[in-house]
Amino acid sequence: MFRKILYPTDFSDCAVKALEYVKKLKEAGAEEVVVVYVIDVRDLATMSTGVAGFGETPVTYDYEVQEMMIANVKKKLEELKTEIETVGLKVAVKMPEGVPRKEILKTAEEENVSLIVLGSHGKSNVKELLLGSVSEKVIRYFKGPVLVIKRDEST
Amino acid sequence: MFRKILYPTDFSDCAVKALEYVKKLKEAGAEEVVVVYVIDVRDLATMSTGVAGFGETPVTYDYEVQEMMIANVKKKLEELKTEIETVGLKVAVKMPEGVPRKEILKTAEEENVSLIVLGSHGKSNVKELLLGSVSEKVIRYFKGPVLVIKRDEST
Repeated sequence: MFRKILYPTDFSDCAVKALEYVKKLKEAGAEEVVVVYVIDVRDLATMSTGVAGFGETPVTYDYEVQEMMIANVKKKLEELKTEIETVGLKVAVKMPEGVPRKEILKTAEEENVSLIVLGSHGKSNVKELLLGSVSEKVIRYFKGPVLVIKRDEST
Repeated sequence: MFRKILYPTDFSDCAVKALEYVKKLKEAGAEEVVVVYVIDVRDLATMSTGVAGFGETPVTYDYEVQEMMIANVKKKLEELKTEIETVGLKVAVKMPEGVPRKEILKTAEEENVSLIVLGSHGKSNVKELLLGSVSEKVIRYFKGPVLVIKRDEST
């Protein structure tokens, strides 16, 4: 029922909170965790054209910044893998490029997961509203169960 | 983390499916289940005015039908309570009258539950769309975690 869990993360507070639930589900039969971090193509597009408007000269060090960002994510994913393995769960890590809600749903289908455990930012500011819409789409379109974890009220 | 669970039911297929997850969560530390069945005031209003339009003569046996319906729900809730107690969980049953999404959220707050486990019909026909909106509202407004269980694709 909870055997194979998809755990999308963007390393935000609410994703970290959701991880506690992933670990706890080991007691209810969880065996494998697929960790997915989506490299948002829309962020990459912004970086490669700079923050300035369309048609302006691209900033030359963008590619380097992008590589550093990806290396940093890879490092954090490795640490996360070790952390989850410590509680006795098998871990696979995926780092697709794309639109987060689409890549999360695609990975859930491909991996045939039993459950998605999803941190959701709620709706206290504009950035969080966007992330909230990822949760909404995943809940709406994934055919299996979804456990939605909100951010702590205190944080 | 999963200690006290709110389990809203309307005795639909997807609510029955969600119950399996409630029971399974005992292994991850669930101790108490608050079962809530909301008597939808909008259904009662329809019944008391008949299915005919506003201003038409009310059907005289409505009250009797309503009483029978409520007695039937009470009986089914007692059976459900026994079924959940069998797996070793403590059970409280609530049967508020009101608008389902509001009463579910109100009960979750009052009972200070750790988690809501919610069956969701998905969106394959109009009736189900309405029930889907209950799930959406509960997920959006409840501050704690929500486990959403979709109906089997095969049913």
